[in-house]
Amino acid sequence: MPNYCLTLCYDGTRWRGWQRQGNTPNTIQARLEAALSELLEQPVEVHGSGRTDAGVHARMQTASFRAKTKLPPDAILRRLRAALPPDIGVIDLDEAHPRFHARLSCTGKTYVYRIWNSDAPNVFDRRWMHTVAAPLDLAAMQAAGDKLCGTHDFTSFCANRHMKKSAVRTLRSMTAARDGDEVRLSFRGDGFLYHMARILSGTLIEVGLGKRTPDEMPAILAALDRSAAGETAPANGLILWETEYK
Amino acid sequence: MPNYCLTLCYDGTRWRGWQRQGNTPNTIQARLEAALSELLEQPVEVHGSGRTDAGVHARMQTASFRAKTKLPPDAILRRLRAALPPDIGVIDLDEAHPRFHARLSCTGKTYVYRIWNSDAPNVFDRRWMHTVAAPLDLAAMQAAGDKLCGTHDFTSFCANRHMKKSAVRTLRSMTAARDGDEVRLSFRGDGFLYHMARILSGTLIEVGLGKRTPDEMPAILAALDRSAAGETAPANGLILWETEYK
Repeated sequence: MPNYCLTLCYDGTRWRGWQRQGNTPNTIQARLEAALSELLEQPVEVHGSGRTDAGVHARMQTASFRAKTKLPPDAILRRLRAALPPDIGVIDLDEAHPRFHARLSCTGKTYVYRIWNSDAPNVFDRRWMHTVAAPLDLAAMQAAGDKLCGTHDFTSFCANRHMKKSAVRTLRSMTAARDGDEVRLSFRGDGFLYHMARILSGTLIEVGLGKRTPDEMPAILAALDRSAAGETAPANGLILWETEYK
Repeated sequence: MPNYCLTLCYDGTRWRGWQRQGNTPNTIQARLEAALSELLEQPVEVHGSGRTDAGVHARMQTASFRAKTKLPPDAILRRLRAALPPDIGVIDLDEAHPRFHARLSCTGKTYVYRIWNSDAPNVFDRRWMHTVAAPLDLAAMQAAGDKLCGTHDFTSFCANRHMKKSAVRTLRSMTAARDGDEVRLSFRGDGFLYHMARILSGTLIEVGLGKRTPDEMPAILAALDRSAAGETAPANGLILWETEYK
């Protein structure tokens, strides 16, 4: 059966995350599968590059599905756009290599955590930013992030306590940058564990507020214990920024 | 009584515009007056630089009010911010010259109309942009806008049919600019009539789509008849960008 690749974006505010959950229609995957199944008149299963939590956004999410249809890709794209609500956007849709799989073929991802670091109002972007009114020390956050980069067992940064598989991941880079009142934390890695990007963000925010020091990071990693790391930062500040494929 | 000046921004999506309307609490002015009256423990009347329609946003709106209080301005600012919902932001609050009045002292305003000119998705900014999927001819829109600039009777661009006062206004400048898939129309003038910025935008969009020509603009102005101009563009694309004072 022909294989297709989809590039999506979404405002995750009102969604219960990416992954299909039983019969709830309020997940991005379930909504996409319902739209494609109706449009292509066959059951369609959609695979994403990975899951995003409830309330997390995507600037670029990649998904794949198989279907047999006479419709050319641009007709599927046009009809799918018309069938989806305004908070799920289809950037692109095209035929893919027969062996392409959005999750299994994914070689890396970038997540961005957006922080509004001011007590000034932020009415237009408040849905995509977590507000931290007290000033953040970006140099300390960058120093802490540098100590977390590399290949490590990230169990301390994983909310799944019953993780059976390996928690070893490679965090390729972490950057903390300020643009006026906005602070952006970018995490690029080969893969992210459950809540990993949000626990990394929450821990770095605590460093930025002076509650932790960059030097504590190696011990947090070594503890292999979720309680050693900081709070899980709120979902609304997190955005899946980019997915990578060979 | 001491006089105060407020600078505000708001996401107008869920509000029924600026102006107080009977007992409805769902206007920006009513919400501000309620918050200030409670905070300052006296009835407070707030004057805005002008009204914005239901659904119209403000990047910068100016308002003034009089009150007698021992609270310093920065304490009023802090408490007012805490008392307002997240879609109304107070940028600044300070004591003003005794004769300052946000509406009467206002010497000019800039409105921006934002258009998403693409059939690509726009999930994050969809609340502040009107979508026009067909390509817009910006050179034609600019040429038409140039013919509308100057001092004219703008009755054809006013939705108030029972206007008793003069409809003469000066449109100081109009610019149509593209930034990727976004088109921004900026209107700078000494004052704007009811729906004027939206009727100007709707008329220029019709020019951009080739339904009207720039040469028709003088006749539309001369008609002094609302039905001579184009459609009223939707409220959600309009934003009060800046207010001017001497």
